[in-house]
Amino acid sequence: MILIGDLKSLPDWLSYRAGGKKIGFVPTMGYLHEGHLSLVKRAKAECDIVVVSIYVNPAQFAAGEDLSRYPRDLQRDLSLLDPYQVDYVFTPDDRMMYPSGYKSWVEVKGISDLYCGASREGHFVGVATIVLKLVNLISADYMYMGEKDFQQITVLKTMLRDLNHHTQIVSCPIVREADGLAMSSRNVYLSVDERQNALGLYKALCKAREQYQAGINDITILQGSMLEILSAYNVKVDYIAIVDSESLELESRAGEKSRILIASFVGKTRLIDNMALRA
Amino acid sequence: MILIGDLKSLPDWLSYRAGGKKIGFVPTMGYLHEGHLSLVKRAKAECDIVVVSIYVNPAQFAAGEDLSRYPRDLQRDLSLLDPYQVDYVFTPDDRMMYPSGYKSWVEVKGISDLYCGASREGHFVGVATIVLKLVNLISADYMYMGEKDFQQITVLKTMLRDLNHHTQIVSCPIVREADGLAMSSRNVYLSVDERQNALGLYKALCKAREQYQAGINDITILQGSMLEILSAYNVKVDYIAIVDSESLELESRAGEKSRILIASFVGKTRLIDNMALRA
Repeated sequence: MILIGDLKSLPDWLSYRAGGKKIGFVPTMGYLHEGHLSLVKRAKAECDIVVVSIYVNPAQFAAGEDLSRYPRDLQRDLSLLDPYQVDYVFTPDDRMMYPSGYKSWVEVKGISDLYCGASREGHFVGVATIVLKLVNLISADYMYMGEKDFQQITVLKTMLRDLNHHTQIVSCPIVREADGLAMSSRNVYLSVDERQNALGLYKALCKAREQYQAGINDITILQGSMLEILSAYNVKVDYIAIVDSESLELESRAGEKSRILIASFVGKTRLIDNMALRA
Repeated sequence: MILIGDLKSLPDWLSYRAGGKKIGFVPTMGYLHEGHLSLVKRAKAECDIVVVSIYVNPAQFAAGEDLSRYPRDLQRDLSLLDPYQVDYVFTPDDRMMYPSGYKSWVEVKGISDLYCGASREGHFVGVATIVLKLVNLISADYMYMGEKDFQQITVLKTMLRDLNHHTQIVSCPIVREADGLAMSSRNVYLSVDERQNALGLYKALCKAREQYQAGINDITILQGSMLEILSAYNVKVDYIAIVDSESLELESRAGEKSRILIASFVGKTRLIDNMALRA
């Protein structure tokens, strides 16, 4: 596992790729959990060279968000990665990624302003831009991303396809705690009580899926059941959206391609989760 | 010379690049002139594989501009390219470049809204986006561009650097007609009288350079002399800007790194030109 801290030390990816070696890339903001490690494991199984990046990207935090207190612990992350025989860990810093005079931003219009984009101004421009920079620097064949950030995956797939970029996204299932809470680096913010309340997101999603599978496709009914559960768990809803899983457009009725996206606050912590309605 | 009309027929650039072959790319909107051909010639001299693209990019035309009447003649272009032993000519169409559902745009903030960007709304977003798509599709080592579009080169250099793209821009001198008029596909729009008037741009630039070299560095004096000449030639000025040739910021006094940018209308035809003050 080679740690790369500056742009000049990045290897010659071209010679790997031309030699038929597939480069798998797992972009992260660090403070790794089982969700990240599931991506690393899959990348190792499917690629010849695996690169993990650890970088808390300031451009994707909206004003007033948790940038400064976002959890960071490189030694812990490296220990967690150690068993997976990752080839490279890339740890750039702000000065490298956004040097003085930095001016270029990518926007995926139409889907960047919805849902999490509506609540977090500039978030997806920050995400799209850093990911484009990283896939250019890593020259990845495949980029592994978790479905917890479902809108993020859609934005990035659209960007890479639109810009004719060679990197392909491999979308991987959400990893959950034993009780169902989606793994997130931000779960560390939760108090003991909040940790119990946070389970409301998963419970609400399961309830809606259960109702859908029992034949209910009325959006209002499904949302009503979810709101009832979320309220019981003291979760403050930012949005609940039942969307087409490809276009992310709001559904008029729930169907086989529908996905429910939830964003919420548990105490001061913003948590998101999502679930396909089809089993 | 292989003509490529669709994305699937693009060759495996990776094998060329990994084999140590340098790929040179000349993006054009067609209706080629000696300026374009000078770029092709230089690319052939410096690279192993030369790709020319011909595509009139609708996204870089502002509303009400000359998109529909922009001159197009593929057979003429291919005949002009024939002697240069270009390897590939890439001629995508709108459906390929901006398919239904296209959403992703790149903006180089700060320099895209100045000068030509102020007069042509959305122009540089269109330029930046199409060029990023093209360099991704062509995987060019070097992209050859003419200095007539000086602001364009600066925007694109900034974009490729910011986004950590491997393609490097090779900036090439303006090619002029015998009397000094900068070559442009749009010169075909000019009537006989307008063709005479168009020379005002070059004359004005030469006058300012001559004054600078004689020791005058006062912006107002230099602009005044230019305006006098442009007025005598019946050229309607859009802007005259004396800028730092790297940052494109306006100079307070003309200096060794200054460049004069002019945009103007000769009749209904928008013409641009520019010149370094240093000999």
